[in-house]
Amino acid sequence: MQTVSENACFGGTQGVYTHASAATGCDMTFGLFLPSEARDGPVPVLWYLSGLTCTHENAMVKAGAQGWAAEQGIALVFPDTSPRGAGVADDEAYDLGQGAGFYVNATQAPWAPHFRMWDYVTEDLPALVFDRFALDPERQGITGHSMGGHGALTIAMTLAGCFRSVSAFAPICHPTASDWGQKQFTAYLGEDADAWEEHDAALLMRDAGFDGPVLVDTGTKDQFLDLLMPEALAGAIAARRQQAVFRMQPGYDHSYFFVSSFMEDHVTFHAEALYA
Amino acid sequence: MQTVSENACFGGTQGVYTHASAATGCDMTFGLFLPSEARDGPVPVLWYLSGLTCTHENAMVKAGAQGWAAEQGIALVFPDTSPRGAGVADDEAYDLGQGAGFYVNATQAPWAPHFRMWDYVTEDLPALVFDRFALDPERQGITGHSMGGHGALTIAMTLAGCFRSVSAFAPICHPTASDWGQKQFTAYLGEDADAWEEHDAALLMRDAGFDGPVLVDTGTKDQFLDLLMPEALAGAIAARRQQAVFRMQPGYDHSYFFVSSFMEDHVTFHAEALYA
Repeated sequence: MQTVSENACFGGTQGVYTHASAATGCDMTFGLFLPSEARDGPVPVLWYLSGLTCTHENAMVKAGAQGWAAEQGIALVFPDTSPRGAGVADDEAYDLGQGAGFYVNATQAPWAPHFRMWDYVTEDLPALVFDRFALDPERQGITGHSMGGHGALTIAMTLAGCFRSVSAFAPICHPTASDWGQKQFTAYLGEDADAWEEHDAALLMRDAGFDGPVLVDTGTKDQFLDLLMPEALAGAIAARRQQAVFRMQPGYDHSYFFVSSFMEDHVTFHAEALYA
Repeated sequence: MQTVSENACFGGTQGVYTHASAATGCDMTFGLFLPSEARDGPVPVLWYLSGLTCTHENAMVKAGAQGWAAEQGIALVFPDTSPRGAGVADDEAYDLGQGAGFYVNATQAPWAPHFRMWDYVTEDLPALVFDRFALDPERQGITGHSMGGHGALTIAMTLAGCFRSVSAFAPICHPTASDWGQKQFTAYLGEDADAWEEHDAALLMRDAGFDGPVLVDTGTKDQFLDLLMPEALAGAIAARRQQAVFRMQPGYDHSYFFVSSFMEDHVTFHAEALYA
């Protein structure tokens, strides 16, 4: 692991690091915020998964999360959204290939060798950060925005017991029925739609749910509502009687101005679960 | 004036607008955050002047100011840092020309026709925003980062009575004695160093001071301390017996991670003056 940068931030440290990832077969870059409390021992950790086109950096500089995490004594991890590099497959579209890993393990050419973002985010990067930093693996929460909200919800519901709390900002809720999902799952996972279902938050909510609190915020003016399909997740939450707070926020769109506006709520939500 | 974008943000609106500026003779872009209170009438306004290489956008997305401004019911204006466009003079260096206006009115070729950022920030843009938005001209504060801290301090001390409070993040304090100043003042204002003095915060503090509270934060690990020369401003504050809080923040550098870490303090500081 190599240190790209470390900046003092809200009494803690905002770092950026690179490492060779066995999961993706390429160098990966991630951001990590450590609150001052990490100097004295392991702290709880909140994973933040980013959306289409993002790198590790977008949320790190635009989401305004570090101040609230510092207040709560919680670390933040900001993974990249795909493998990257000259030897990694890509596509001209913004929503396929580099910057658009969709948090799945690709099985199809040309994506299969590198696009293993599920394994990267759930195994490879956790193994590294819990080894190298003062983070408590028994106290993890996960959140994300858009494609990253999809990742947070699907990972939290699949890895039962791993996360105490899950939240999402404007998540892609029902990718098996959306152009944000069908296109990518066809490319990464193949034509057989049965293989897609384990990566659909609304279907996972219907079939499995989450053993803990859930918080989801989406703006009523989100320009991508037809692609996000929050109604599918809301319906599944209600049908399952899942402990959850599902909010449609009046006037907000899909931008980081929306994300930052509700970051305090999300960090506080996770802190309540992580310190319970 | 044309609307580039408007996003819901912390209960208010983060807008971006363009307008033809008489001062700079070109189209200018600025950001404006209006808190929800602006729907009911004029609100106080805090000007945020940005540093070298920045546009209107950097602080708008990275400084984390809107949440605190919303809490205080204060508007934020984010001007650009120079004239821009194909017809505007520029230089290959990052610290001269476009992105580096230094908040002065250039008198020298090739800069003179467009590089009139003093007039733009103190006359042209105020006339526009007080006409078009619910802002109270009797309640203005000003702040900025690096070159923008220089701008905030020099403007506040020169326009006596205009601003109730002034603050700065890692300001260029003594440009007449620094490579961040001598180079640009020579280019924009000419070889006669006497003409530079009215744009030097440390000299203005020595000669005029500010009729109100002053807050200045600089990081002890700022990589540009030799160029910023905070000791010159600190000395002038002390010699003048100026009401001020001058802080050296341990471990912080020059980045927006530093700025955002202390944004709550600065917005609260201005709010106390603007609501006094």
